[in-house]
Amino acid sequence: MNPSTIRLSLPSKGRLQENAMSFLAAAGLSVFKPNPRQYQAQIPVLPELGVLFQRPGDIVVSVRQGSVDFGITGMDVIEENRGANGEILILHDALGFGHCSLMLAVPEAWSDVTSMESLKTFASKLDHPLRVATKFPILTERFLNRHDIPHTLISAEGTLETAPTIGYADAISDLVSSGQTLQDNRLRALTDGLIQPSQAALIANRKSLQTNPAALEMARRLLEYIEAHLRAKENLLVIANMRGETPEAIAQQLFTQTSVGGLQGPTISPVLTRESNQGWHSVSIIVRRDHLPQAIGELRSVGGSGIIVSPVTYIFEEEPPRYTAMLAELKVDNRQ
Amino acid sequence: MNPSTIRLSLPSKGRLQENAMSFLAAAGLSVFKPNPRQYQAQIPVLPELGVLFQRPGDIVVSVRQGSVDFGITGMDVIEENRGANGEILILHDALGFGHCSLMLAVPEAWSDVTSMESLKTFASKLDHPLRVATKFPILTERFLNRHDIPHTLISAEGTLETAPTIGYADAISDLVSSGQTLQDNRLRALTDGLIQPSQAALIANRKSLQTNPAALEMARRLLEYIEAHLRAKENLLVIANMRGETPEAIAQQLFTQTSVGGLQGPTISPVLTRESNQGWHSVSIIVRRDHLPQAIGELRSVGGSGIIVSPVTYIFEEEPPRYTAMLAELKVDNRQ
Amino acid sequence: MNPSTIRLSLPSKGRLQENAMSFLAAAGLSVFKPNPRQYQAQIPVLPELGVLFQRPGDIVVSVRQGSVDFGITGMDVIEENRGANGEILILHDALGFGHCSLMLAVPEAWSDVTSMESLKTFASKLDHPLRVATKFPILTERFLNRHDIPHTLISAEGTLETAPTIGYADAISDLVSSGQTLQDNRLRALTDGLIQPSQAALIANRKSLQTNPAALEMARRLLEYIEAHLRAKENLLVIANMRGETPEAIAQQLFTQTSVGGLQGPTISPVLTRESNQGWHSVSIIVRRDHLPQAIGELRSVGGSGIIVSPVTYIFEEEPPRYTAMLAELKVDNRQ
Amino acid sequence: MNPSTIRLSLPSKGRLQENAMSFLAAAGLSVFKPNPRQYQAQIPVLPELGVLFQRPGDIVVSVRQGSVDFGITGMDVIEENRGANGEILILHDALGFGHCSLMLAVPEAWSDVTSMESLKTFASKLDHPLRVATKFPILTERFLNRHDIPHTLISAEGTLETAPTIGYADAISDLVSSGQTLQDNRLRALTDGLIQPSQAALIANRKSLQTNPAALEMARRLLEYIEAHLRAKENLLVIANMRGETPEAIAQQLFTQTSVGGLQGPTISPVLTRESNQGWHSVSIIVRRDHLPQAIGELRSVGGSGIIVSPVTYIFEEEPPRYTAMLAELKVDNRQ
Amino acid sequence: MNPSTIRLSLPSKGRLQENAMSFLAAAGLSVFKPNPRQYQAQIPVLPELGVLFQRPGDIVVSVRQGSVDFGITGMDVIEENRGANGEILILHDALGFGHCSLMLAVPEAWSDVTSMESLKTFASKLDHPLRVATKFPILTERFLNRHDIPHTLISAEGTLETAPTIGYADAISDLVSSGQTLQDNRLRALTDGLIQPSQAALIANRKSLQTNPAALEMARRLLEYIEAHLRAKENLLVIANMRGETPEAIAQQLFTQTSVGGLQGPTISPVLTRESNQGWHSVSIIVRRDHLPQAIGELRSVGGSGIIVSPVTYIFEEEPPRYTAMLAELKVDNRQ
Amino acid sequence: MNPSTIRLSLPSKGRLQENAMSFLAAAGLSVFKPNPRQYQAQIPVLPELGVLFQRPGDIVVSVRQGSVDFGITGMDVIEENRGANGEILILHDALGFGHCSLMLAVPEAWSDVTSMESLKTFASKLDHPLRVATKFPILTERFLNRHDIPHTLISAEGTLETAPTIGYADAISDLVSSGQTLQDNRLRALTDGLIQPSQAALIANRKSLQTNPAALEMARRLLEYIEAHLRAKENLLVIANMRGETPEAIAQQLFTQTSVGGLQGPTISPVLTRESNQGWHSVSIIVRRDHLPQAIGELRSVGGSGIIVSPVTYIFEEEPPRYTAMLAELKVDNRQ
Repeated sequence: MNPSTIRLSLPSKGRLQENAMSFLAAAGLSVFKPNPRQYQAQIPVLPELGVLFQRPGDIVVSVRQGSVDFGITGMDVIEENRGANGEILILHDALGFGHCSLMLAVPEAWSDVTSMESLKTFASKLDHPLRVATKFPILTERFLNRHDIPHTLISAEGTLETAPTIGYADAISDLVSSGQTLQDNRLRALTDGLIQPSQAALIANRKSLQTNPAALEMARRLLEYIEAHLRAKENLLVIANMRGETPEAIAQQLFTQTSVGGLQGPTISPVLTRESNQGWHSVSIIVRRDHLPQAIGELRSVGGSGIIVSPVTYIFEEEPPRYTAMLAELKVDNRQ
Repeated sequence: MNPSTIRLSLPSKGRLQENAMSFLAAAGLSVFKPNPRQYQAQIPVLPELGVLFQRPGDIVVSVRQGSVDFGITGMDVIEENRGANGEILILHDALGFGHCSLMLAVPEAWSDVTSMESLKTFASKLDHPLRVATKFPILTERFLNRHDIPHTLISAEGTLETAPTIGYADAISDLVSSGQTLQDNRLRALTDGLIQPSQAALIANRKSLQTNPAALEMARRLLEYIEAHLRAKENLLVIANMRGETPEAIAQQLFTQTSVGGLQGPTISPVLTRESNQGWHSVSIIVRRDHLPQAIGELRSVGGSGIIVSPVTYIFEEEPPRYTAMLAELKVDNRQ
Repeated sequence: MNPSTIRLSLPSKGRLQENAMSFLAAAGLSVFKPNPRQYQAQIPVLPELGVLFQRPGDIVVSVRQGSVDFGITGMDVIEENRGANGEILILHDALGFGHCSLMLAVPEAWSDVTSMESLKTFASKLDHPLRVATKFPILTERFLNRHDIPHTLISAEGTLETAPTIGYADAISDLVSSGQTLQDNRLRALTDGLIQPSQAALIANRKSLQTNPAALEMARRLLEYIEAHLRAKENLLVIANMRGETPEAIAQQLFTQTSVGGLQGPTISPVLTRESNQGWHSVSIIVRRDHLPQAIGELRSVGGSGIIVSPVTYIFEEEPPRYTAMLAELKVDNRQ
Repeated sequence: MNPSTIRLSLPSKGRLQENAMSFLAAAGLSVFKPNPRQYQAQIPVLPELGVLFQRPGDIVVSVRQGSVDFGITGMDVIEENRGANGEILILHDALGFGHCSLMLAVPEAWSDVTSMESLKTFASKLDHPLRVATKFPILTERFLNRHDIPHTLISAEGTLETAPTIGYADAISDLVSSGQTLQDNRLRALTDGLIQPSQAALIANRKSLQTNPAALEMARRLLEYIEAHLRAKENLLVIANMRGETPEAIAQQLFTQTSVGGLQGPTISPVLTRESNQGWHSVSIIVRRDHLPQAIGELRSVGGSGIIVSPVTYIFEEEPPRYTAMLAELKVDNRQ
Repeated sequence: MNPSTIRLSLPSKGRLQENAMSFLAAAGLSVFKPNPRQYQAQIPVLPELGVLFQRPGDIVVSVRQGSVDFGITGMDVIEENRGANGEILILHDALGFGHCSLMLAVPEAWSDVTSMESLKTFASKLDHPLRVATKFPILTERFLNRHDIPHTLISAEGTLETAPTIGYADAISDLVSSGQTLQDNRLRALTDGLIQPSQAALIANRKSLQTNPAALEMARRLLEYIEAHLRAKENLLVIANMRGETPEAIAQQLFTQTSVGGLQGPTISPVLTRESNQGWHSVSIIVRRDHLPQAIGELRSVGGSGIIVSPVTYIFEEEPPRYTAMLAELKVDNRQ
Repeated sequence: MNPSTIRLSLPSKGRLQENAMSFLAAAGLSVFKPNPRQYQAQIPVLPELGVLFQRPGDIVVSVRQGSVDFGITGMDVIEENRGANGEILILHDALGFGHCSLMLAVPEAWSDVTSMESLKTFASKLDHPLRVATKFPILTERFLNRHDIPHTLISAEGTLETAPTIGYADAISDLVSSGQTLQDNRLRALTDGLIQPSQAALIANRKSLQTNPAALEMARRLLEYIEAHLRAKENLLVIANMRGETPEAIAQQLFTQTSVGGLQGPTISPVLTRESNQGWHSVSIIVRRDHLPQAIGELRSVGGSGIIVSPVTYIFEEEPPRYTAMLAELKVDNRQ
């Protein structure tokens, strides 16, 4: 890989890798990995971009160092490893996959300990500082200090959930998806024990965006594709037949409804029937996926029939809001 | 799972589970299973519905008992286990996957036995009642009685096809997909030996629909999504450019054709070209997927060009016919 | 399979099979294989066609012999096995999957050998003809003769890349995808050592097309579906809202742009808004997928907003160009 | 398979099959299955025996019917399916693999219910008979009747453990290995809830042994191999060097010890050393595997050194006790 | 690998590789492959030997060429590829694994064709030479010529069994293990259609043995280990207690028996018991594994009891007979 | 697990776990894991010992802390994590599996850097301290300081080998087995770059052995089994027939030989033959596995024939030397 290439790091294995690859493909940015054993790849529609595969935590370190320009990884490892000097800029913090939570959990048997407050009381009666096993020492340290609980952190390579049973630690700070693993090991998360919510995010090296116009342009294109794709995933194109004297009369009827009337306006075209003019028109609108049942009901209530729903690949707005936010953060205007 | 939650049971493993999950996802009802080891799941767009996973036959028993409200499983196990008291209502009997047939099959070597009639003759010469191995005793019993053949049913846990060779039974009543397994074991299905055709179906507990309005509303929504999806799978949106003095003139040309002229009517919009008005219009119609080649031919024959075909996600009719049928069956009108 | 059935052979295993199945499914020609152990299948929308599965090289031999009518396999094995008598007609030579290259490669240690010219010099100093291991003797022979290099071909069943290290051969002529395997074995492809580029292709038996009208009609349908699908994969349907006095005024603005103005013309329909006539219209155009970012920019620059992008399943032209080419090659006109 | 062949049925899949195959191989009766897809196999050292593969329950039914002569399967399904007419003879009830227990289990939340007695009290307060889900209706019925608990049995195809949570049943009667699955599902076995302990057993058809001398001889050979192997697995051959005036003097020292002195007697041979007669002898004894550490200690305490331990493949006794027991049961003496 | 290293090639994948690795390990020649991706390995107890992995047919070509000295592969590919010049010497032709047969098979439907004789008659009535698909052209050619049947050989890369159904060939010459695949494809082997029986064999390059003393010595060590191991696999060490006045008296009793009396002689040592001299002795003999049941019976009949059976790892004879045979073949005496 | 139970931690996954399980089973200490999902297990012959599964590094931390008493893991992680306070005692440092080396490696392109000395020179010319990526910071730090090379350590979660190519580090300190991975990534280990050789080892918590007599006794039993097993793996029991006037005469012949004469002495018993006394005797000796070929030769040279070789399971010495060493280290005598 040419050293001047702009670089994006993706997770190198497991479900997070699969989800990142699927997400990019669905957004029109399919990754082409010529050899499964290699750690390099390309995105053919973004030929100036080189793709690398690294472990989640290594992605953050690499972006922070500047040896890669962009990365997609979880907010958990980003917050743990981003440091205090602002080298890392978070371009998009909600890519919609890789959801989990960093939680503080205690043995089920500690029946009195349900919240951070009761944990503090419990810990004060121990003859040693609370021993907490974790792979996220920085976030856990900060969280326990905020709750004023004396503690020792114990690091571990492997499964944390067995630590309290083995006697290796008293409590754990660990990533939780469904909670099933905690339950299997007779542990319980505290009600206010959420240390860090997480999902996949897109990050960039700040200095790279400030000094390299090609990297800034790449940020704009990545955000444009990603935002247009995420918006499209939430919407559907709905086409119905409606009857009315004029397009305007039909539009007025739609405007009386909640889900289908609140838009800038429907597209209306005539529908021709065997009998001479019957006043049928085709009405196209964009509807949010989760409003679909309501929208269908409203369309029917004003006489809509023959309702067809089609998928949408992208919805582009004027300018991606996250790109605008990024420019503000960088105090750079690339259109000067 | 809250006991008041409305419940849907899905097959817990194998190809039937995969197909059921894919079918629901394609219909916009993706199932989210937070933990692969758990037997519970959610459909995020139907938050009031809890999803369970059970073996096919257990689904029927649970819906019959009322411990779950809805189930998706094969017609084979539904007919075998539904009982005679009408506790189970079949909401949709043709979901389009899980096709197979419960067939009566005999050794290839019985060259004279090709139909139920000849089987009866053959069986009358045996010194014992015909021994039939099956996992569907109720349906098989009923079928053999209808053909007046004296028999003993032999149940089996495992592969039935080897039973005649081992000497465990004389004939078998078994599920058949491609017939390859029968052939490999030198068995042959009788020409009129079809005991029960089967594919996946949606069933409900009758009492639940009669007494729980939330369950009735859930039935309506499930059927609405499923029917709109199945209809959409069979159709495509076809857009062609055509030239004509007026939209009406173009429509008249289409009405002369079979595949593209039998609809309520095409949507027609003007197409603008660099040269001033050339009379080009865009014509949109819905065409059945299996009529597509013919439709393309017809459009070309009346001057259609630049033909584009797009996928359709749903087609909603006035009210799902199967929902209307269900209300009739329940003798309940939910719109009173 | 009835001997009079028209037959299509597909690769029987591995990535090439998977890709061929996915390609046909995406083109609307899903293959239904009732039994995974069988070597036969059907394409339900083409009921007159029987599908067989064979090894890549056997497909070419079968089509050449005429025992099957059509085949999909790689250009590498087609060129190696097609023979000189024109029995095989290539209907489509770029199906867009199965890319690889047959290359001549030498040990990295031969630092002076980088091109065919330098290989010739090197070979002339050996005390024996250059020993080249290959699975493609015909193509390799022809290539080496063209470069006038004395040689012995050595055939091998297994991995060729180790042959030079073992001392089994001096150089190899082998299929290369990413080059990683060559590199792992300390081999290097020559800069002008490309013997045959390859991707999947559709072939037919010439005599079958000349003598069997049903086969000729099947060729037309296969090409129609495949070309319409490949064209659709490269395009997207873009719909934008634009404001203008008249549709013609809007069209004139579009015609000033490169990516969105070069078409026959956009479809334009009115958009109705709550306020009385504001001059909003919906503009639909087909845009090449790789021109999308530019097209979005151009639409914005002439006032386009609310831009929606939808997928396209097929784009049908007047008549498939490859079908026309085939008829010319066959010197047959099926419309007489 | 020739109908007159003597037949042995083995489990057709899963861990029970693997364990049965390993057990027979270790006993010198390796099973040779020429084709993984076939349901037939051979044991080359017992050429008169044909091997079949069936599901555990089907094995019992086949042996009971007499369509196979011998079977290896679990005591759980044997006791459930053996019937009351003594068709099945249990030749060996402890083959040492496939251990599990059929247990009655209730929700953990029923804190007052720990024994059958307390279950009876609890059940008497329900407004319906206790609903118990099981795959072993006969054994469960008998067990609940013996404890005088009114109940309804509910059959299930799939996982029983979720039945109480779903509301499908109140309690379950299920196979338990480690108890982990019960615990994961928040269930608890009752302290005296053991319905049937189980491990793999060898069974035979009684009538076959009584009427077919070849089957009786096969029973003898199977039991001879199996018993000699099981005995060998529990023992080791221990050889030590000891010094003493005479072999008799050494033997007397051994007879003072517990683990190594209780046998019929050690084998003693001279050991020759470079120096002329030093009185060294080699002592060989058979020691139980679980007495090995103690035996080593005892040998050392009487001067044993250079202790070597070797494996044993078979230990044959006068006549297999289980074979003698079988003859008594059959009231047949095969040596008349 | 140093070019002067002596080389052994093993099959590079599949069941043949697994079996070859297990066979060598059981013979005390475990292969150590430091990296699964490499094609090289070592046998630590034979440090002068380098191990390569190649496809079966390539092994024969490499040994023939002399680029490797020894190979283990199937007799089928050895006979096909060994050539006529005697470059290959077969050191051991029955390693006891990899059994299969190269057979001539015809469609089941050819009911009159059961032998080569009837095939000849059948073929004489065809209007073309019999088309036989095979991967073994040399052996098949020779076999068909010997039976005087006019034919065309058709080569194929993939599954041959479907060739007759597709019409690609009339008959096939293919490797058969269990015959199941033939049966599934409705083919039948001819009764005298065995072209070549096969199992794994050890081969060497003749010239290497003649000119390289280190290779000759390696041949001796390989054969010594392999023969001692194969002989040990067929035998067991049996130790019984017997009573008699003298060892000679006991020996005389054994000599009256078939299985245990035909050896050079038993090893007899005294067994000491608590009571003073009772005349017990321990008798050790080597017994063939398949004579074990008979030997146990005979020992019992002459008063043997407490019979222990132990495994044997190697049995070394004076000099490996196959090594002697090899020397004769080479006309070399390495002890001069 | 009862808190007073003595605990042994084993690696929780991968090849190291498999090898540790196989090693213990071969030593007669089979681990029984009732449930694959649990992290606990038992060794039935050592019922007082509880077995846990942890990641390699966590094992060291747990033994150091004292939350477990014994552990089996690699010397690499032991040396990295054992600390300076002697909490960890290494009972056995060569269990014979899990071999690897921690090595310092640099890019192949640094052609002048082959040793630590040349690395020092190279590093002195860099404009920054040498950046070394590693997962073993303590060992690497110590090693680089010993060679006086200024450096920065960079930690990484994932694959280190790509770090130099990405620019994440200059060199790496990583575990090496075959060297293939280094080669694939164009890296090269330095000739004197061995930081730590490693194989699996048995460790204990020092304080536990000093204060808990049950733990000390467990250490003795573990070492006794392990040493007797490792010694047995290296030896074989060889039995030959030899002829001689007296046992003493035979022994004298053996004492003239190297491999079979250096022992305390052979066990000699008479062999009886059909002919009256022929002077045959059976000679048993223990021979090292790697001396076997030589021993066979020597036995033959003094007239040995009918040579049988048997496996050995354990060889017990007076007292395990490593146990004696441990007691010395602990300054505890458990036999007072």
